[in-house]
Amino acid sequence: MGKAFDALTAHLREIDHLNAALELLGWDHQVMMPPEADEARAAQTETLSRLSHEKFTSEHTLRLIDAAEAEISGADPDSDQARLIAVVREDYAEQTRLPTEFVAEVARVTAMAHGVWAAAREANDFSRFAPTLTRQFELARKTADYLGYPDRPYDALLNQFERGMTSRQVQAIFDEHKAGLVKLIAAISERADQVDDSPVHQAFDIEAQHQFGVKVISAFGFDFKRGRQDVSVHPFTQSTSKWDVRITTRFSPDFLNPALFGTLHEAGHAMYEQGLSDAVAALPPLDNGASLGVHESQSRMWENIVGRSHGFWAWAYPQLQAAFPTQLGGVDLERFYRAVNKVTPSYVRVEADEATYNLHIMLRFELEMALLDGSLAVADLPRAWNERFEAYFGIVPPTDALGVLQDVHWSSGLIGYFPTYALGNMLAAQYYRKALADRPQIPADIANGKFDTLLGWLRENIHQHGRKFTADELTRRITGEGIQQRYYLEYLQAKYGAIYGI
Amino acid sequence: MGKAFDALTAHLREIDHLNAALELLGWDHQVMMPPEADEARAAQTETLSRLSHEKFTSEHTLRLIDAAEAEISGADPDSDQARLIAVVREDYAEQTRLPTEFVAEVARVTAMAHGVWAAAREANDFSRFAPTLTRQFELARKTADYLGYPDRPYDALLNQFERGMTSRQVQAIFDEHKAGLVKLIAAISERADQVDDSPVHQAFDIEAQHQFGVKVISAFGFDFKRGRQDVSVHPFTQSTSKWDVRITTRFSPDFLNPALFGTLHEAGHAMYEQGLSDAVAALPPLDNGASLGVHESQSRMWENIVGRSHGFWAWAYPQLQAAFPTQLGGVDLERFYRAVNKVTPSYVRVEADEATYNLHIMLRFELEMALLDGSLAVADLPRAWNERFEAYFGIVPPTDALGVLQDVHWSSGLIGYFPTYALGNMLAAQYYRKALADRPQIPADIANGKFDTLLGWLRENIHQHGRKFTADELTRRITGEGIQQRYYLEYLQAKYGAIYGI
Repeated sequence: MGKAFDALTAHLREIDHLNAALELLGWDHQVMMPPEADEARAAQTETLSRLSHEKFTSEHTLRLIDAAEAEISGADPDSDQARLIAVVREDYAEQTRLPTEFVAEVARVTAMAHGVWAAAREANDFSRFAPTLTRQFELARKTADYLGYPDRPYDALLNQFERGMTSRQVQAIFDEHKAGLVKLIAAISERADQVDDSPVHQAFDIEAQHQFGVKVISAFGFDFKRGRQDVSVHPFTQSTSKWDVRITTRFSPDFLNPALFGTLHEAGHAMYEQGLSDAVAALPPLDNGASLGVHESQSRMWENIVGRSHGFWAWAYPQLQAAFPTQLGGVDLERFYRAVNKVTPSYVRVEADEATYNLHIMLRFELEMALLDGSLAVADLPRAWNERFEAYFGIVPPTDALGVLQDVHWSSGLIGYFPTYALGNMLAAQYYRKALADRPQIPADIANGKFDTLLGWLRENIHQHGRKFTADELTRRITGEGIQQRYYLEYLQAKYGAIYGI
Repeated sequence: MGKAFDALTAHLREIDHLNAALELLGWDHQVMMPPEADEARAAQTETLSRLSHEKFTSEHTLRLIDAAEAEISGADPDSDQARLIAVVREDYAEQTRLPTEFVAEVARVTAMAHGVWAAAREANDFSRFAPTLTRQFELARKTADYLGYPDRPYDALLNQFERGMTSRQVQAIFDEHKAGLVKLIAAISERADQVDDSPVHQAFDIEAQHQFGVKVISAFGFDFKRGRQDVSVHPFTQSTSKWDVRITTRFSPDFLNPALFGTLHEAGHAMYEQGLSDAVAALPPLDNGASLGVHESQSRMWENIVGRSHGFWAWAYPQLQAAFPTQLGGVDLERFYRAVNKVTPSYVRVEADEATYNLHIMLRFELEMALLDGSLAVADLPRAWNERFEAYFGIVPPTDALGVLQDVHWSSGLIGYFPTYALGNMLAAQYYRKALADRPQIPADIANGKFDTLLGWLRENIHQHGRKFTADELTRRITGEGIQQRYYLEYLQAKYGAIYGI
């Protein structure tokens, strides 16, 4: 490349290194840091956030963008170079709307909030979290005001995670989806006794759970030479580069699903980050997922479409039985396959089945909208959560720890983020459908423990590109149309129709 | 404080936060990072080092120092404020002599070097490490040239770790020390059969070793709410603030000493960092040890003067026996006390006894001087190491992994650092002597498992001050004289005279 382009990328890499240090400070905070370091870590995080934002939003960045753009004029608009400049210009426009001191304040408040949330969750005491949550929603509202929005403040926040998507679009997709989903769940619940999930509710040694998870995700293609797995309160994936992508999980001593499917889920995220092309990895900020929805499509695909499929368990189940002969020796494949696919109302989103999962998201989306437009006060949130939960699921969380306090997101200032999970489910089904059309042998390969047919397709069509294309562009390039909710619904109807005999 | 002083400290804290992120990147590199992230981590480390150095050596810093100094004029010269300004002015003078690009280069080379060293050590192949080591000595020589020196290049490097100390002073102390030491060791070796250390050479379960170490250092006063312990190739202590001080150790399945005494050693370093006053902790760069020699005095005091004392084991040994009943049930306290105090030539410095330890340092000091002044080439280093080792200890390391490749320091660019270990031994004896004069009950308290009498004295006289005083100032304030080698020699003569019946 030319000198101006190189000067731009060197500058962006310097910012990327600061951001990588911030990622490590964040990972360490949740996984390793001793408890009394909260304030010191918040101050460190604040400073690095300030420096990173200051550097990126400087006029120097704009001059470098202008010069690099002039230098590559005439380049293929789909080239890495042209795409980098388009993405950076967009980020620059967005970030310069936020004052650096505000960004630093958000970083400090957020770093302090994690410990407050974790302690409140452990003590099952919402009132300890309420002031922090109030502050986070105030900051989110302020963020929206700084960023601007033509319609609703929620759109400005959503746009940070899912570029170009609006809350009305989400609402329309959700409304369409909900009708079919509620009908399916109702039909299933009439035949609830068709599936017995007692096999997954037994005592399972934690180290043996860990080993089995490692074996499976190694087979999937998660590269432990470029990643690691640890334990945290709330599972997550964090990447400081494609050469260092870390996942976390949490273990339940008497329930197999959380660590098992949680591990497959986070590995799905991680393989996306590990699958960036070297060219894109060298051009931050292209070295990220296309959007959070696309990111979630990868985690949900490996967790559910693969990890809860009959073919996968035909390969994996004998190994799981060998790991837990006492618990599973007398449970045959059919019964186990049905057990991990039981559809039932549950309190905790990350442990929800594929069919009810999106209802958890819709509930959060509605509550976030209400908190943000002021029609719901934080003090009233636990009540609103429980009421809406009962309306959606017919049950009421017995504790706030199993209800409104369950998710890490709001403490992390991730408001407007939840919809991307449901969009991810939909995209997973839509991409997988195309993968099958391109490579019909994928299901048979999975049943033989050969996962690189699917992973190769994902690498080629999705992973390598990083943020080169928006979610909408990428989805259209791959499938010829924008995001559709119906493929996920069709997938659920076919799968659970068979399981429940509907 | 006034506005100018506050502006200075805010600026210095920002730099401190960058340095804390660098500390975390470094800790993570040695303890957690997946193997293929070496290059990415080196790039991150380089950038943060550059930013930190750039910020500190800017003219802005000088203006802030000048303004703050004017503002506090007339303040007590021993006040935190006056001391901060003196220390920062000195650091500023030192750091501005190093070009930022050179500092960044050193950071990158050093971050890459760790993996090279660890692999060469594992493969017992010096030739794999030689190019990196050559580069490190070239950079060290360049560093010395940038920093300047009135006499020898070594002085410029030593001055980074032990302000105000010269290589000739070290040489004089070592020469004086060596005569008495060699005499003592010769007398001991004539009676080598008086001590049998077979009790510590048995199979010891690693988790039980770990638990025992945790119990002891918790009793010492290491605060796990503000720290943690992990495993690494080479044990070390790293601090990002007094609220987050981490130690590492390494376990041997058939030798009790490395993890046990290594843990006590690193806890000694860590308690120094954890013991800073809040006032000093808020005034970086005062939030560090007075010098590396003073730092080492703390680790060696807890490892040896306490941890290898008869009184300590009177308290600790029944607990160790309970942890290892098969191995130690039939070994009485006297025999065990003697076993952990066996004096014998050994290959590995960190596992050496108190008497021969300083010989390991003298050997490194001489080799470093020769490498730095060009009279020894890196290619000839293994031979020179082994020859000198035989001259000092009468034995030749069977492998380079147990010889020239054993230490992490040179790979980390820590050249001119080793002498501080021997100075630390001397200071430990000198400080402990004064602690006993001030609080004669210390030995009796230790024998009852009460360690806060000693820790309290250390906190009051040493820890709280951080870098407010130089090593020489601090030592004179506490003991009324500068560093003396004789107290350590007297301590060894008395202790080992009794054990060996000399």
